[in-house]
Amino acid sequence: MTKKYQDDGLALHTDLYQINMAETYWEDNMHNKRAVFELYFRKLPFETGYGIFAGLERIIEFIQEYRFTDSDLAYLREELGYEEDFLAYLQTVRFNGTIRAMKEGELVFANEPILQVEASLAEAQLIETALLNIVNYQTLIATKAARIKQVAGEQTVMEFGTRRAHEFDAAVWGTRAAYIAGFSATSNVRAGKMFGIPVDGTHAHSMVQAYKDEYKAFHKYARRHKECTFLVDTYDTLRSGVPIAIQVAQELGESINFNAIRLDSGDLAYLSKEARKMLDKAGFRKTKIVASNDLDEKTIMNLKAQGAKIDAWGVGTKVITAFDQPALGAVYKLVAIEDDNGNMVDTIKISGNPEKVTTPGLKRVYRIVNKVNNRAEGDYIAMMDENPQAEEKLKMFHPTHTFISKFVTNFEAIELHQDIFVEGELVYVSPTIQEIQAFAENNLNLLWDEYKRTLNPEQYPVDLSQKCWDNKMRNIREEQEKVQKLNS
Amino acid sequence: MTKKYQDDGLALHTDLYQINMAETYWEDNMHNKRAVFELYFRKLPFETGYGIFAGLERIIEFIQEYRFTDSDLAYLREELGYEEDFLAYLQTVRFNGTIRAMKEGELVFANEPILQVEASLAEAQLIETALLNIVNYQTLIATKAARIKQVAGEQTVMEFGTRRAHEFDAAVWGTRAAYIAGFSATSNVRAGKMFGIPVDGTHAHSMVQAYKDEYKAFHKYARRHKECTFLVDTYDTLRSGVPIAIQVAQELGESINFNAIRLDSGDLAYLSKEARKMLDKAGFRKTKIVASNDLDEKTIMNLKAQGAKIDAWGVGTKVITAFDQPALGAVYKLVAIEDDNGNMVDTIKISGNPEKVTTPGLKRVYRIVNKVNNRAEGDYIAMMDENPQAEEKLKMFHPTHTFISKFVTNFEAIELHQDIFVEGELVYVSPTIQEIQAFAENNLNLLWDEYKRTLNPEQYPVDLSQKCWDNKMRNIREEQEKVQKLNS
Repeated sequence: MTKKYQDDGLALHTDLYQINMAETYWEDNMHNKRAVFELYFRKLPFETGYGIFAGLERIIEFIQEYRFTDSDLAYLREELGYEEDFLAYLQTVRFNGTIRAMKEGELVFANEPILQVEASLAEAQLIETALLNIVNYQTLIATKAARIKQVAGEQTVMEFGTRRAHEFDAAVWGTRAAYIAGFSATSNVRAGKMFGIPVDGTHAHSMVQAYKDEYKAFHKYARRHKECTFLVDTYDTLRSGVPIAIQVAQELGESINFNAIRLDSGDLAYLSKEARKMLDKAGFRKTKIVASNDLDEKTIMNLKAQGAKIDAWGVGTKVITAFDQPALGAVYKLVAIEDDNGNMVDTIKISGNPEKVTTPGLKRVYRIVNKVNNRAEGDYIAMMDENPQAEEKLKMFHPTHTFISKFVTNFEAIELHQDIFVEGELVYVSPTIQEIQAFAENNLNLLWDEYKRTLNPEQYPVDLSQKCWDNKMRNIREEQEKVQKLNS
Repeated sequence: MTKKYQDDGLALHTDLYQINMAETYWEDNMHNKRAVFELYFRKLPFETGYGIFAGLERIIEFIQEYRFTDSDLAYLREELGYEEDFLAYLQTVRFNGTIRAMKEGELVFANEPILQVEASLAEAQLIETALLNIVNYQTLIATKAARIKQVAGEQTVMEFGTRRAHEFDAAVWGTRAAYIAGFSATSNVRAGKMFGIPVDGTHAHSMVQAYKDEYKAFHKYARRHKECTFLVDTYDTLRSGVPIAIQVAQELGESINFNAIRLDSGDLAYLSKEARKMLDKAGFRKTKIVASNDLDEKTIMNLKAQGAKIDAWGVGTKVITAFDQPALGAVYKLVAIEDDNGNMVDTIKISGNPEKVTTPGLKRVYRIVNKVNNRAEGDYIAMMDENPQAEEKLKMFHPTHTFISKFVTNFEAIELHQDIFVEGELVYVSPTIQEIQAFAENNLNLLWDEYKRTLNPEQYPVDLSQKCWDNKMRNIREEQEKVQKLNS
């Protein structure tokens, strides 16, 4: 099919209603009012105890390139009927606002802003959909991958899921997110090139089939690949694959390094134990066993419990799609807007679902770290003009069950947001992917194990300051009074 | 982070092992042997009765652009250590083979080839990962969307899921797949531009928050948008949103078309019934009620059963992520290869899991349509040299439970594959997206309702011809004998 509009600007990667709202604001000369939006999710996925933030790098790229192309404008004009005056405005739109965000690899929990956008109302609105699309996916995958790595422990986990990923972008950005959360390598060569992630892979069943013979196939493979991992389950793992791999390795001797065999089907516990015996008996004690086949944190934990002799894990579908819960529900909510006098005023959204009520106002997020044991006591959301570090005893109370509270002393209050863009200028220097991975690992060390276990973790506290809580209650009351007035 | 390799060729969008295998074949001068691979899945997702194929358009784009860029080759050389002789070969690689495939919008079932690649062994291998990545996602979403549309019936369903999609590509290609399966529109403007899909959307809660007042917000919105859908649940649906929407519509009278209200939270059954009464009482009998909020085929069916007064459905997360089963397991298997004498010979992969045993040889797929009632009797997989249409009585037997069989007479055997590429040349003219949607709808009319229901559908027969079955059994026997010989 020939495309009517050839170039593919990403500014149109948005829900239509964002453009409609921008048009309304522009028509009403509201579009340049300062507005603050916060991006956060309301619930961690997988009943897990913590999330790992990923997505900032892609957001930076998106914001830097942000503009409506000529063909975008032509499409809006010709197909959707927008008028010239508004299109002339859209043509001038760049992102000139400020973005503050957590660093990638940061621990993140429900109901705390991952990212804040302070910009003209129209600009902040126009970038919403893309930001959510990016953060929801990449944070979801980093969070899932962290669970899997948690169970694998010191063992290597590799991401092999490209074929099951949700299209191309998910494959590469998803495997990057998994790497941030502690995976060692990806099978996706493009991701390796784009992000500097180690790439891994051996051969498939089809190579054995092409030679119709494992002996021949392994020999041929070894001619160019001195580091040999042989896939041994094309015909019969224990009666053909493993003995032939051993035979070939014996014949080739020092000329190859018989790294590993790979099991990709069947009973991985049984097969790995039997294969381990066969390898050991033949003297290949250092040859590892790599397993794959729909693995995740549950199957890996089970295989380990069964004493499976598996040294490294190839994880695909379950991590790249976050199979057991394939969506994170981050939202992007207006918390403050400039009034007609140029003052920032709070905004709130009320809902029949209490967890959907927003927390108004300009806020900052702190991680409260106990200086004695260097563990996180919880996260603390305060109004912008508060300074929790100045408190001697910090009162932290549960954001819904407010009667539960604790006092923390001798703490460090670490602000979790960095300036990324300031008035349209990129001011953040992105770390390397290896630095991000190390940062995530260090962050995890701040957490008690009770928050990290994969089943029934304790709930990590994310608390509002008293001032922030009081402000929220006041805003709710005001809106309720308005509705009451309307109905009286 | 500055990227070392700037340009982004898609040839590297592959698992590393494909390149390793291509290298092995090239080293062994096997790379130009003709090979046939088939792409199929083993099990339908969601316990559904049929799938809808999508992905061909993206495959065509991918194949047409297929080449390793200079920076791809530099990466392979510098970071992964491939040698110059092989890289010189890779630089020349284009896809010069033949691809036969179903048309997008075709009904597809487990264990039948959706697509066949006949090409040089190396070329066919190198494109595997990308083809699976594309088909697995797009077919999954089209299949999920068809279920949802099935339950919605004649009512409009719109795709609103970009923010929850797995990154950018999934948002646009996923919404295209949903449109193929009968959705009416997308919220994603870029998808509208790329594919010619209708785009829909109104305004968000944030607009009401920005004005801090529904009355003002709806009035302002209506200034530029004569077709008005008002979102009514920012503060209180029945006590504020709906009455104010009605008031604004009454004030604006003929100057707007009060299309719809939209409900996005709360008890959609109750709220829609109450809102319907209020709208009707005010004389807005034609104003529709649009609902959204984590909808899928189950919730829509439930809401209808409860008598909810909902006229159109906005579906997001659940369709764009295929939430209840976010991966389709299509595989790509070598079924035949050229031997040293230039003859095509069968290949097979045996497995401890019987459903993973491949079906060898060059095959064709037919849909057997009963000429009397114009309904499909099943699909029929035959060897390439068979002609099922020439049979007077076609024996169809169950592919695993072979003792179950039936005879079909007075049928048409419709071949399901089209030539897409022939020896590297694109020979297929893609239909418009509207034509593809209509094609899918017509295909669904071939199916008995028993295969289409969303709960416990009957299993549609996909049968092997006797010759195809015998050939598979012979291949299995031969491989088993080889393994036995090795162990005797």
